[in-house]
Amino acid sequence: MIRFPKPTVEQFFQTYNITNFTISDDESRLLFSTNLNGKMNVWGMDLPQRYPYLFANTEQACSFLKTDPNKKYVLGGFDTDGDENYKIVAFPYAGGNGKVILGENKKEKYYYASLSEDGKRLYYITSEENPQFLNGFVYDLEKEQSENLYTGENAPTFISTVSQNENYIVLIQMFANTYKVGYLKDRTTGKSICLSQDAKDIHEFNDAIFISDEELLFVTNEQSEYNYIVKYHISTKKREVLCQFSDESVTGIQWHKDTKTLYIITEKGVEDYIYRLQEEDTEPVSVGCPLDTIDMVKVSNSGNVYVLGRGATQPFNIYRLNDDSWEQLTDNRVLGVTKEQMVDPEVVTYPTFDGKDIEALWFKAHPEQDNGHVIFWPHGGPQAAERKMFRAMFQCFINRGYSIFAPNFRGSTGYGATFKKLVEQDWGEGPRLDCVAGIEWLFSTGKCKRDRLFVLGGSYGGYMTLLLAGRHPEYFRGVIDIFGVSNLFTFINSVPEHWKPIMERWVGDPERDKERLEKDSPITYLSTMTKPMLVIQGANDPRVVKEESDQIVHALKKQGTEVDYLVLEDEGHGFSKKENEIAVYKKILDFLQTHTSK
Amino acid sequence: MIRFPKPTVEQFFQTYNITNFTISDDESRLLFSTNLNGKMNVWGMDLPQRYPYLFANTEQACSFLKTDPNKKYVLGGFDTDGDENYKIVAFPYAGGNGKVILGENKKEKYYYASLSEDGKRLYYITSEENPQFLNGFVYDLEKEQSENLYTGENAPTFISTVSQNENYIVLIQMFANTYKVGYLKDRTTGKSICLSQDAKDIHEFNDAIFISDEELLFVTNEQSEYNYIVKYHISTKKREVLCQFSDESVTGIQWHKDTKTLYIITEKGVEDYIYRLQEEDTEPVSVGCPLDTIDMVKVSNSGNVYVLGRGATQPFNIYRLNDDSWEQLTDNRVLGVTKEQMVDPEVVTYPTFDGKDIEALWFKAHPEQDNGHVIFWPHGGPQAAERKMFRAMFQCFINRGYSIFAPNFRGSTGYGATFKKLVEQDWGEGPRLDCVAGIEWLFSTGKCKRDRLFVLGGSYGGYMTLLLAGRHPEYFRGVIDIFGVSNLFTFINSVPEHWKPIMERWVGDPERDKERLEKDSPITYLSTMTKPMLVIQGANDPRVVKEESDQIVHALKKQGTEVDYLVLEDEGHGFSKKENEIAVYKKILDFLQTHTSK
Repeated sequence: MIRFPKPTVEQFFQTYNITNFTISDDESRLLFSTNLNGKMNVWGMDLPQRYPYLFANTEQACSFLKTDPNKKYVLGGFDTDGDENYKIVAFPYAGGNGKVILGENKKEKYYYASLSEDGKRLYYITSEENPQFLNGFVYDLEKEQSENLYTGENAPTFISTVSQNENYIVLIQMFANTYKVGYLKDRTTGKSICLSQDAKDIHEFNDAIFISDEELLFVTNEQSEYNYIVKYHISTKKREVLCQFSDESVTGIQWHKDTKTLYIITEKGVEDYIYRLQEEDTEPVSVGCPLDTIDMVKVSNSGNVYVLGRGATQPFNIYRLNDDSWEQLTDNRVLGVTKEQMVDPEVVTYPTFDGKDIEALWFKAHPEQDNGHVIFWPHGGPQAAERKMFRAMFQCFINRGYSIFAPNFRGSTGYGATFKKLVEQDWGEGPRLDCVAGIEWLFSTGKCKRDRLFVLGGSYGGYMTLLLAGRHPEYFRGVIDIFGVSNLFTFINSVPEHWKPIMERWVGDPERDKERLEKDSPITYLSTMTKPMLVIQGANDPRVVKEESDQIVHALKKQGTEVDYLVLEDEGHGFSKKENEIAVYKKILDFLQTHTSK
Repeated sequence: MIRFPKPTVEQFFQTYNITNFTISDDESRLLFSTNLNGKMNVWGMDLPQRYPYLFANTEQACSFLKTDPNKKYVLGGFDTDGDENYKIVAFPYAGGNGKVILGENKKEKYYYASLSEDGKRLYYITSEENPQFLNGFVYDLEKEQSENLYTGENAPTFISTVSQNENYIVLIQMFANTYKVGYLKDRTTGKSICLSQDAKDIHEFNDAIFISDEELLFVTNEQSEYNYIVKYHISTKKREVLCQFSDESVTGIQWHKDTKTLYIITEKGVEDYIYRLQEEDTEPVSVGCPLDTIDMVKVSNSGNVYVLGRGATQPFNIYRLNDDSWEQLTDNRVLGVTKEQMVDPEVVTYPTFDGKDIEALWFKAHPEQDNGHVIFWPHGGPQAAERKMFRAMFQCFINRGYSIFAPNFRGSTGYGATFKKLVEQDWGEGPRLDCVAGIEWLFSTGKCKRDRLFVLGGSYGGYMTLLLAGRHPEYFRGVIDIFGVSNLFTFINSVPEHWKPIMERWVGDPERDKERLEKDSPITYLSTMTKPMLVIQGANDPRVVKEESDQIVHALKKQGTEVDYLVLEDEGHGFSKKENEIAVYKKILDFLQTHTSK
């Protein structure tokens, strides 16, 4: 009968993101941040009605959303075109135009921490007057005045949570992604005590919630490979391990007061899991979830659980747990492409240079589309992981015939604390050799022919892409770098101020480690970067600044390497605007198609 | 506490339209046409899930949507940027890219009429080879072949409906908006009989549905001021008036086979109503509706009623009738503006020059916003009416302080057949004097001061705006014409081909009525068009072509009248793209603000 055309590139790009959400106290409304109308805006959805309506035309991505319990306003955090200088904005409860309440006309960061139960006091952290270590304040929304809570010292210091009576604040000092120490500050006495057993022990303290004014739960990996949950009694200082998993790491906790129910989110390799723990339970009960990876969980006053997440073939969606069944509240999907037409990755393992096993995702193009070419994708972070989370870009390229290989090289999260630390002060050696082992494994298993490989990565993945392009050019037909670090020396000096205290432990010291940083900087290998390249950069990127891309593009052009450079004027470290996203992915696809073996 | 800014212009423009919808046979999916992501596209909504997902990225408004009962495809009609050359496109059932099945690469019109029960034969009307009178065909979707059903003669001829066994077709010959004759064509014999009692009697035959292969219902106003419903038996030719209202006109009928239930939509002045009529009922039962005006009604196989419509302060939304309660399926609203902050118009009546009463909508700005200025809005059509249907433009201007007065001058629908005919061959006299009486009434009742009036209108309303500007310049501070006819002679020759047969009765004959057409052409009064003007035109407009605006703007400029001209390159007789809509309304508002008394 009617013969329809095959899915086109554009179909994959017409997928919408959801980056944040909040539920009103009475659960009558869900607010969420999505680019449904092309730009990131805040949308509302009345429940049980589920049709979305525009709530605030911010045209900027949102760092948090919080609804006032008295239904007078809604708070949100917004930067400007990706510059990460977040302001805190209040909106009328019914929606409409907002008013900046913190950060107006300032190039500073304002991070939301907590809102008092009565909705009148806002706890926040700011870079203002302490760009490296940050300060904490409480802002009185009625008096429009801020009161200082602490002045950060030694390390960037964040508010994790505030007790309901507001007498206690949990602070986290961040020395590195793998070294975070928790403190309990008593506002009545001004004194702080360390919640970690040994502040000098390299460990993580990640999350805390008060379950009463006397007791709190926190997530730490002190003396363990994986994060676990500690229950801490304030006056007695008694601590007990409430919940620990053998090979899963706790990434989030949510508490429902009335039923004393704890919801626990864990990660293991490329997937996330949810558990429920009630007083009568001896161990956490697994709650099956329709999502492979979980971006955000909220528990409503009535005890309903709302989850935002993704699957390998499912874009961002929000679900609600009703008893033991999940109800899908949003319905993002890929235009006219079924899950069966997409590729669910195989989780594979390969041995690397030092005998360790490296886990990777292998997206094999469907036989009828397969063009025999493979894209090697080193993920960003580097202390993150490539997981079962939908990427329109991946599924689009796969549909065009490319297979994709994404290894979780050393430094990746989800494989224990030791593994995560392995990238620290070793950006370019161990992880690179893991990548090389992955590439050789692709060849030796016949998954890819030697002359059919591309490399593509963003952020740290862009750095690794450039490094591989310089040190192992023979592997690749073409190289695509998205806001990658090209020079570790300039990178260390150009990151956001509050990253600087952690750079030494994370990357290295420019004086002490000069030789290593030189060896690990892609720009060192300019002369061997001979393969066709495409470089993409957001002009406002505060993490990997434009100079990182400018310098290597300039040098490459000078030496005659074929290089194409795309700068997005209104983006930062990522692409929040639909038209930019489409422009970037089309550009990459064009590059791939040009350099594919015919 | 937090003082929020007042609503801004942009908030009103961030309102989405819905222009069409269809329900799948199993009622699992609603498809609808909306500009939710900025351009008109087809979106899907799974039921009971109600979150919308992009179904087809057409980027064009949609003239119809129809789902194949076998779930193999979906049909839709689309033109190109408002040129009204509609193609018929098939989409995969799951959505995605479509295939043009009728009208590919042709500048012709293809109108959908009906789809056979088995989804294999598509009945349509086309301008191809018969641009004035149109031809009817049935297209076999399997064989991909069309078979001619009739060749239009004497008047543009449309298919109203097809019987379930496909033996009968109801055709409508359209001599004018007020003169439409129905015929029943028997495909087995090739013979047609007239369904109207007297084809020569000036009357309307508007809608027909087969309730069995032997019986049909149709809507006519033969011998009546208002449309009523006739039940007609084919073999006996017996006709009976099934349902007639004393001062409401039937505008639509929908039939539910299993329960033999008829749903009736009527209009009365500025509002619409819905009734249900079942076999046991002696008269139709009113079904209260949350919408003031109804754009489309569909009854599902299971008997559920879906309605698309608007309210004075409610944008386009779709509701479903469950037993006797309405469930809102979509939730379009004005960003951050409550219904209370908008203005519900008062329905007023004023006496006109010949003693008739004219009904009008009076939108009085809220006292705290009122700037004392009034916008006089002659509606388009002219055989249409200004009704309680949300217009973002109105509510925005009202919010800025302007009150709006919209009279349903003679020629308007909703006030009986005689009243509707009064504009025919009298475009510029009677309706204009009704407008003048309305203006004087505004002054005499103190609703508007003499030097505080603007005039703004589109299409026929643009024509009336220009005519008033030329003949009564003393009334206005400023004049805004949106694709209005400036010259009746050129207009008569430039309308779409299938309009031409009706032009004589509607407007007049250029030879016979030369004097009157001259008198009623705005361009005749150029020299007195002295007030500041703004003219807006869509470049692809096939109804009021760009030349209509070009000629008057050119002449006005030449004589030194202050005139601003905005042409939208990718629009026709209306604005389907969000960014264009915003540009137009901002332009108008700027014009108003510039010429407001300070």
